[in-house]
Amino acid sequence: MGEYQHLLTKRDGETVTITMNRASRRNSLSAEHLAELLAAFREAGESDATGIVLAGAGPVFSAGHDFGDVAARDLPGVRELLRLCTELMRTIQSVPQVVVARVHGLATAAGCQLVASCDLAIAAESAGFALPGGKGGWFCHTPAVPVARVIGRKRLMELALTGDVVDAATALEWGLVNRVVPDAELDDAVAELLARATRGSRASKALGKQTLYAQLDRPEADAYTIALEVMAAASQLPGAKEGMAAFLEKRQPVWPD
Amino acid sequence: MGEYQHLLTKRDGETVTITMNRASRRNSLSAEHLAELLAAFREAGESDATGIVLAGAGPVFSAGHDFGDVAARDLPGVRELLRLCTELMRTIQSVPQVVVARVHGLATAAGCQLVASCDLAIAAESAGFALPGGKGGWFCHTPAVPVARVIGRKRLMELALTGDVVDAATALEWGLVNRVVPDAELDDAVAELLARATRGSRASKALGKQTLYAQLDRPEADAYTIALEVMAAASQLPGAKEGMAAFLEKRQPVWPD
Amino acid sequence: MGEYQHLLTKRDGETVTITMNRASRRNSLSAEHLAELLAAFREAGESDATGIVLAGAGPVFSAGHDFGDVAARDLPGVRELLRLCTELMRTIQSVPQVVVARVHGLATAAGCQLVASCDLAIAAESAGFALPGGKGGWFCHTPAVPVARVIGRKRLMELALTGDVVDAATALEWGLVNRVVPDAELDDAVAELLARATRGSRASKALGKQTLYAQLDRPEADAYTIALEVMAAASQLPGAKEGMAAFLEKRQPVWPD
Repeated sequence: MGEYQHLLTKRDGETVTITMNRASRRNSLSAEHLAELLAAFREAGESDATGIVLAGAGPVFSAGHDFGDVAARDLPGVRELLRLCTELMRTIQSVPQVVVARVHGLATAAGCQLVASCDLAIAAESAGFALPGGKGGWFCHTPAVPVARVIGRKRLMELALTGDVVDAATALEWGLVNRVVPDAELDDAVAELLARATRGSRASKALGKQTLYAQLDRPEADAYTIALEVMAAASQLPGAKEGMAAFLEKRQPVWPD
Repeated sequence: MGEYQHLLTKRDGETVTITMNRASRRNSLSAEHLAELLAAFREAGESDATGIVLAGAGPVFSAGHDFGDVAARDLPGVRELLRLCTELMRTIQSVPQVVVARVHGLATAAGCQLVASCDLAIAAESAGFALPGGKGGWFCHTPAVPVARVIGRKRLMELALTGDVVDAATALEWGLVNRVVPDAELDDAVAELLARATRGSRASKALGKQTLYAQLDRPEADAYTIALEVMAAASQLPGAKEGMAAFLEKRQPVWPD
Repeated sequence: MGEYQHLLTKRDGETVTITMNRASRRNSLSAEHLAELLAAFREAGESDATGIVLAGAGPVFSAGHDFGDVAARDLPGVRELLRLCTELMRTIQSVPQVVVARVHGLATAAGCQLVASCDLAIAAESAGFALPGGKGGWFCHTPAVPVARVIGRKRLMELALTGDVVDAATALEWGLVNRVVPDAELDDAVAELLARATRGSRASKALGKQTLYAQLDRPEADAYTIALEVMAAASQLPGAKEGMAAFLEKRQPVWPD
């Protein structure tokens, strides 16, 4: 991985860890920070890693947009910032790797949006989640987009309208995160989930993840049209052939990719 | 607020309370009752209130459509009634205020639809919820529209097909309501949630609420297109400017609207 | 019901039970098995039964596609198999009867898709659910379509990416099934739920079920357009007329269909 000013990156076996490292600014997402995150996800996405962990250094995961960066911008300037932010969120969903958010402290506004946009998320017991625009003067319009697709509507309304923090146990109950663990066990839990989520054929799983996002929000008939064609094509991939052969021959598969 | 035959209305500080007051008919939704509710929501919507509470007088919240009113109607007559009902539900979502359902007793059929259509809902422990058309001769086709967007599909099917009542604890678990409290604490809980949900800039929050409903049901990419443009524009509103300035200057904001 | 090679079928009162009976192949869904299931659902769908139970004989509910059948197929062959499978899933949703999955042992891949596609589902405490393609070489692309519409997105990602089995209690919490009961009480619980879900006018309920699936995945305004027109038309059906008359006359209804 290349050098970044606002990020720490690490490659450990099959996993790339991208750590937001603007602790003094609570990992807020200035344009520069967003641009680096986007570049790092693209770089990791093109690597042969199978998993990506998104973490934050310091007391919180991420506080969302950096008002110091937003306040001076005119409308085209804010639009440009939000386009960059949206491009980051969509890149997290389109890279072939499984992406896990490692959440501690607070994940607020676009920080909460990052959690919702990662494929999977594990939270420390001490973590909190909020869309604080609801008690402020702007509003968490774009953060609410992926959050609305992860939790129920009444819960979304409560988060978005009150702006208040919900704790990790509530986030788990609402389905915003996959697991809550004691703070000291956070790294182990992330590694354990990622190990389970990255087994199998790499090429087939990448196609699987990308097809999930393609079909999720559509009417069921449209979703079937997409998923059926991809699944038929995927059956001819080396990974699928090997998986079925190994099953039928009662042996361990050797993934070709 | 004007005078209504079937409603009690009250303005208390920033909050308008609209109370269905046909207790002898279990607050069923005759055409006249619906027309008054629609008029009252429009009136409150145009006021400078920040919150609206929807409540019911007497033993139940609302029993849904009034069969005495429906039974004599032909197809165009029922369509007209349902258009009025649908217009009420959509008005609840489009008014700039935060709308909280205060639910006690039973909320059935279009009464349950009202709960699902309000932004937030608090239920008394004794409350029950049902789509009873499923065990009758008509069917809760339109009530199921917002209920399906608030709870999971298997739970919707159970409600809609069995017609049976689920209790408040189940409604909470399913995400149909935001909170369940002892009956005696219902008014306090509604006031407390509404106070938290109405903080901040009024104009920004109104735009926030309306944009949530605009993006909720769409594919994620379409939702981002909507939310991004609104959020960029909203950054230039006086409320957003004041919120960011107050944050950066470490002072309390003074909302301009 | 006709004779089937891979199925047991039974008509008991108003209920047709379709039991997958390829226990030696863990009720895997070969093309022949799928074709029989489709024929049986169509046959039951055209009968005057009000409910259908889908069950599995032997140790598991269903293990999904039969790799022995898939492995030898080229792309058009797999597409044909998946079209047949998708047609079965959509037929389960379009038959006028209420369909309940009776789940024991394991429901994996297209077996889990069957559970998600049935209107209602009851699981034995010992049951498990998985989309195992996620740890293999193909991927559960089409099984994820209905599962994604029944459980939350983060939970779907965990199921689809890890391929691991979740237990019945977790499936209940996620909303994949309606109830979990001790294994010995499974048949009674299915019968009890089905009895409650099949009351009322048969014609009105069939229209109700089909309209639910028509509106579920659409933007709320489109869903209202569909549901409103159907509900207006349905108000003129004999069942609706009788239901309202009985209610107003305070007598038990006598359903005309």
